[in-house]
Amino acid sequence: MEPKIELRPIGIIHSPYKTRKNAPPQGCQRPEVVSEIEVFNEYSEGLKDIEGFSHLHVLYWLHKSEAYQLKITTPWDTELHGLFTTRSPNRPNPIGYSIVQLVGRHENLLRVRGLDALEGTLLLDIKPYVEGIDEVENARAGWLEGRLKIFTH
Amino acid sequence: MEPKIELRPIGIIHSPYKTRKNAPPQGCQRPEVVSEIEVFNEYSEGLKDIEGFSHLHVLYWLHKSEAYQLKITTPWDTELHGLFTTRSPNRPNPIGYSIVQLVGRHENLLRVRGLDALEGTLLLDIKPYVEGIDEVENARAGWLEGRLKIFTH
Repeated sequence: MEPKIELRPIGIIHSPYKTRKNAPPQGCQRPEVVSEIEVFNEYSEGLKDIEGFSHLHVLYWLHKSEAYQLKITTPWDTELHGLFTTRSPNRPNPIGYSIVQLVGRHENLLRVRGLDALEGTLLLDIKPYVEGIDEVENARAGWLEGRLKIFTH
Repeated sequence: MEPKIELRPIGIIHSPYKTRKNAPPQGCQRPEVVSEIEVFNEYSEGLKDIEGFSHLHVLYWLHKSEAYQLKITTPWDTELHGLFTTRSPNRPNPIGYSIVQLVGRHENLLRVRGLDALEGTLLLDIKPYVEGIDEVENARAGWLEGRLKIFTH
């Protein structure tokens, strides 16, 4: 009954984070760390004028994701939380999402800050971050409130 | 060489937008419109405590997506722009992304505002919106600057 949905990688991420153990729970917790997004040559025309954008949404395939559970504990407390109220990489569809700061571009290579993806992660999509459509005021973050307030991009 | 990446829908979106023609370019342009996200029963445990969150990231499969081009024009001007500097639904991996406001929950049904997905769109993931990791200050949006400043969530 369920349709099959297939994705194709459009690039690969080069990161100083080589294993899940040495990556931070969120990339923004290590704002000094620069990663590189290599967009495959066949897609590089789609980057035209991207250097005008300071921030990007990046979607990627969490290739080290493991079996998921619908209620989990997190690094932040000892309670069980609904999976969809967490940013755990172990999800039914392990698509990673980060907002990154674009700090440089050389042809099909983008240098970015704030990306928690591991070395070798496959890139799925890049979208522009646009104030007005991506901006939220006075958000309330349930049980996570205040726990991830570490760094502002 | 490229690994195959397969996704499975975890729910379905019910929307007053029935066709691409009657949907706005961005859901946030019609803040009064309420859509319903139906999370399939087998995943509903993962929603535990989600009502504490005012805003969510929603990822979905753009099932009406058409063939993509790497340089495109948009509704906003007559220039050609790199696809990855646009929010066009026609992309190599047509994954839709919106930040939505959660206005109500009844069991596995979430009522949300700000979602531009069409009726019958398949849900891929829900993640909590968290200030501090998802918040950007002083973003610069290249050629899109100022053109989408329509509504703040």
